Amino acid sequence: MKSLKLLVSLAALSAASHAMAWDYVLLDSDKAADNLHLTSQQLGVKTERPFSVTLRTLHGGRQEGVSIIDIDNGVMKLSVVPTRGMNVLQASVGDVRLGWDSPVKEVVNPAFIELNGRGGLGWLEGFNELVTRCGYEWVGHPGLDNGELLTLHGRAANIPASKVTLHIDEKPPYAIHLRGELKEQAFKKVDFSVATELVTEPGSTSFTLNDRLTNNGDYPKEYQALYHSNFSTPFLEQGAKFAAPVKQVSPFNDKAKADLADWQTYRGPTRDYDETVYNVVPYADAKGETLAVLHNKAGSLGVSLGFNTQQLPVFSLWKNTDTQGQGYVTGLEPGTSFSYNRRYQRPLNLVPTIGAKEQRQFQIRYNLLADKAAVDDALSLVGKIQDGRQTEVRPTPLVDLSKE
Amino acid sequence: MKSLKLLVSLAALSAASHAMAWDYVLLDSDKAADNLHLTSQQLGVKTERPFSVTLRTLHGGRQEGVSIIDIDNGVMKLSVVPTRGMNVLQASVGDVRLGWDSPVKEVVNPAFIELNGRGGLGWLEGFNELVTRCGYEWVGHPGLDNGELLTLHGRAANIPASKVTLHIDEKPPYAIHLRGELKEQAFKKVDFSVATELVTEPGSTSFTLNDRLTNNGDYPKEYQALYHSNFSTPFLEQGAKFAAPVKQVSPFNDKAKADLADWQTYRGPTRDYDETVYNVVPYADAKGETLAVLHNKAGSLGVSLGFNTQQLPVFSLWKNTDTQGQGYVTGLEPGTSFSYNRRYQRPLNLVPTIGAKEQRQFQIRYNLLADKAAVDDALSLVGKIQDGRQTEVRPTPLVDLSKE
Amino acid sequence: MKSLKLLVSLAALSAASHAMAWDYVLLDSDKAADNLHLTSQQLGVKTERPFSVTLRTLHGGRQEGVSIIDIDNGVMKLSVVPTRGMNVLQASVGDVRLGWDSPVKEVVNPAFIELNGRGGLGWLEGFNELVTRCGYEWVGHPGLDNGELLTLHGRAANIPASKVTLHIDEKPPYAIHLRGELKEQAFKKVDFSVATELVTEPGSTSFTLNDRLTNNGDYPKEYQALYHSNFSTPFLEQGAKFAAPVKQVSPFNDKAKADLADWQTYRGPTRDYDETVYNVVPYADAKGETLAVLHNKAGSLGVSLGFNTQQLPVFSLWKNTDTQGQGYVTGLEPGTSFSYNRRYQRPLNLVPTIGAKEQRQFQIRYNLLADKAAVDDALSLVGKIQDGRQTEVRPTPLVDLSKE
Repeated sequence: MKSLKLLVSLAALSAASHAMAWDYVLLDSDKAADNLHLTSQQLGVKTERPFSVTLRTLHGGRQEGVSIIDIDNGVMKLSVVPTRGMNVLQASVGDVRLGWDSPVKEVVNPAFIELNGRGGLGWLEGFNELVTRCGYEWVGHPGLDNGELLTLHGRAANIPASKVTLHIDEKPPYAIHLRGELKEQAFKKVDFSVATELVTEPGSTSFTLNDRLTNNGDYPKEYQALYHSNFSTPFLEQGAKFAAPVKQVSPFNDKAKADLADWQTYRGPTRDYDETVYNVVPYADAKGETLAVLHNKAGSLGVSLGFNTQQLPVFSLWKNTDTQGQGYVTGLEPGTSFSYNRRYQRPLNLVPTIGAKEQRQFQIRYNLLADKAAVDDALSLVGKIQDGRQTEVRPTPLVDLSKE
Repeated sequence: MKSLKLLVSLAALSAASHAMAWDYVLLDSDKAADNLHLTSQQLGVKTERPFSVTLRTLHGGRQEGVSIIDIDNGVMKLSVVPTRGMNVLQASVGDVRLGWDSPVKEVVNPAFIELNGRGGLGWLEGFNELVTRCGYEWVGHPGLDNGELLTLHGRAANIPASKVTLHIDEKPPYAIHLRGELKEQAFKKVDFSVATELVTEPGSTSFTLNDRLTNNGDYPKEYQALYHSNFSTPFLEQGAKFAAPVKQVSPFNDKAKADLADWQTYRGPTRDYDETVYNVVPYADAKGETLAVLHNKAGSLGVSLGFNTQQLPVFSLWKNTDTQGQGYVTGLEPGTSFSYNRRYQRPLNLVPTIGAKEQRQFQIRYNLLADKAAVDDALSLVGKIQDGRQTEVRPTPLVDLSKE
Repeated sequence: MKSLKLLVSLAALSAASHAMAWDYVLLDSDKAADNLHLTSQQLGVKTERPFSVTLRTLHGGRQEGVSIIDIDNGVMKLSVVPTRGMNVLQASVGDVRLGWDSPVKEVVNPAFIELNGRGGLGWLEGFNELVTRCGYEWVGHPGLDNGELLTLHGRAANIPASKVTLHIDEKPPYAIHLRGELKEQAFKKVDFSVATELVTEPGSTSFTLNDRLTNNGDYPKEYQALYHSNFSTPFLEQGAKFAAPVKQVSPFNDKAKADLADWQTYRGPTRDYDETVYNVVPYADAKGETLAVLHNKAGSLGVSLGFNTQQLPVFSLWKNTDTQGQGYVTGLEPGTSFSYNRRYQRPLNLVPTIGAKEQRQFQIRYNLLADKAAVDDALSLVGKIQDGRQTEVRPTPLVDLSKE
């Protein structure tokens, strides 16, 4: 009965825009996030592999009231969390899962998180996504900057989206666009909005994030962005490799120095390993495009992240190869900045400014590399971008944290 | 269908009290805040200008689940936010809007605010109302007092009302009373309740707040209250004026010293102005009644706040004449106290005590001064209260903040 | 209509498990906490005193969205709060009420509490239960430990239960089991889950808590647990007594030293008394079982808590015999630990460790002692466990808080 009513209203909505696309408002100030199940069949689209979009609500525990949007493009399944910054919870193609197993099992409603708790590490009580947006006032480790405690990786991941819309192109390839707006606002402090978009085409094994940050304020403002993109098995395993065109790599801290020689190779789950982080300055092609690749030991399965260094000039490689139970995971993290507290990044020129009314675009393409040929193609592109240019392996961290 | 059901229950309720008034419970422990639309026609009231009361719920972003009550008294429209301390979000008469445009666009659910964030400035993430209640344990700037971080302007604005009722007198002028209770309770710390009331008469261009603070505890307790009443255009503009019977005025801090000579005149939107604040001790008439007036440059449009200095002995004038986008706004703020951190106000005797089981009443009358005659009348009353008494213009702040 | 639908689904559920028990899922990730009223009659159980289980939702104020489960076992009524750590809000037998009157009148949704507020005392804004779970990462007074602010008594009481189920044995005595899972998880910090259970038998005047803590992490982890069990009149009164087999008792702090001689006797409501706390190391029988008893002056009414010192080796007696309005209450608190900040308890060997994948069981039996015979029996058991062994009355606190 309920779904019937929804269909009716969906039909009514789509009628209004039938020439170019189907458009649905899933959530807005006067519209609650009702359950929804929309299929390509309902739209009258005949595709080889039917696609669908589903909105559901979680209950119980600290996930009470959290909305999840599941997109099944016919080949790849994606779950997006409007209640948590439009983060991408997970993606999968068949039994290949992009994402990881965090000890945090719930999809936590930000209402139940104190980001200022645990000395600014409250963010860790909700961290379990494939892609967690970090920013946009700041990113990085908690600590005082200008007398204010900056909490881990900013607020974006814990801002519920204000308006969520679904847009499906009405002609092939019927690209599916899921959009949500994040408002990061505080009187006298910040007036950002982030128009997020996830795009995937039916039948594809990739998706793209297109985010547009706007400084609605009348003054320039510092900002930072980092896309915490997290993978585990079957990509991550002993002997798995990371590849990118690298201009400079350095250990994040003293601990990471020890493994610097092997920074591009992964360990299996390693008891007491905790984590090491490497700060990477990537090379890019003439247009700024670059590619980061993670693949398994055999080179038969991988993922690539394509991004533009004019938007996201640096990259953190987070190697959290501890035990499976603690979260065996690696983070591929294109960003404006590394993961130091903001006060350390100003001297590195990694705290950019966005002028009044200006916008910044952040675009990342996530591709599954489903076989050896796809992995080889990606590695070949990495080599082409590197183009024989030298890599500086800097033995010491860019920041002397011992002086803290 | 739903509204029909509501009407039935409304009718049933009203029947129970038909002799004196119509009474409706809009929200209570066993009653969710359901959507409601109640009109004078439904009540069988024949007025020249029909009035109505509407309850709606906001969705999405950080305003998920926030209730708004819209009162249209036939001439003035008012919006009250039960989820945020029964604050008055905005009011308007025709196209004259009382209120302002904060960078904070959402009506933020307190569940998503950490008042202790941003060094105690988390309150700024929700601040956008015409009248924001500040108090009642404390008001003022964040800072340590007795070893505890007092967050900006207390908790009242972020306490959802516990029980919300609507009372409409059953005979002319059919005054509309909206009531909500705020509970400010913590074991061993505080046991306050605040019975808030907003009253407006159909067809009028004014409203009154009648708040009653009760100390339910068995011990005397410090308290503070401040009614942060915020106006922008068309009242605020270059050359707009503030008037009140003034016994003493002083700059809040060193920055405000520079503009002391012009403290009663406003600038237009001024880049990099930020804010200045003036601490005012008003004169009152023999009964303690006083009046503060804000009017435009031409003196053809204004607002007045009437209050009693026995209840609210001091007044802060907040001149935030920065750019429109940053929030071009002035705050007229009757209070028990100024906006210093509580620890600074004890030596000023501005941290009163409320005895066990005692009550304190706070009443403020907000009037639109719709034309020159109304403005002149109000200014005349100000002059009458001043009654030729001297104004001390104190050149230095009451508190030496440099010693902090 | 709604209740009919519920009954249908209940019947369907019960059919699936009719051989052994009736099982109902009250709340799960895909199931909201809908209102429910289930009676023994509906189950076809013929008992002398019909029993029932009811689920309801609170609205308004800071209790918006809080679920309450009321169990009426035919003799004892119990209210459990899934939204607050499955805490036992209150219990009663006839007009004898177990529990107390806190100044906090709402059943506060954790979404509205900042545990880190008030210098780590935010917990006090929700504290009003008969049994409040404290733990499981830590218990005790707020303060820094390893550079992190530990908030008062940990997070358990403010963790909403993730999955709540009701299990009723299908044969006499038809024991009612209410279960809820608490997830206490933060990446890199903690991966605990607590399977809570409350069991009561129809017609009985007792209930039991059976909690099982699991460390799902791959590393050993410190933990602490304390069951804050709070009673007032008619048990607590001037001359009321506490009894337990005591190996050692000491004052918590200097203030408690003054009343050490009378530590087992209670005052009536005493202005400005605030609180005293005594740290008790109980004796137990050969199996570790022990008993704590609170009874009125006449010895005609009491409660007992039975627990095992292998699970909960120490006991805090909290004597908050201030005025009724401030909360006239005593806490009987079996725990792994006392109420000092965790950093003080390590040297006392009261910060135990739970190994990877290990479990710890905590079981407490709450009995109403309805008449003098029942009180005498309980006191007799206390004497039997003491078995003539000596009590060390230690005149000084175990921790020198003045050195803080």
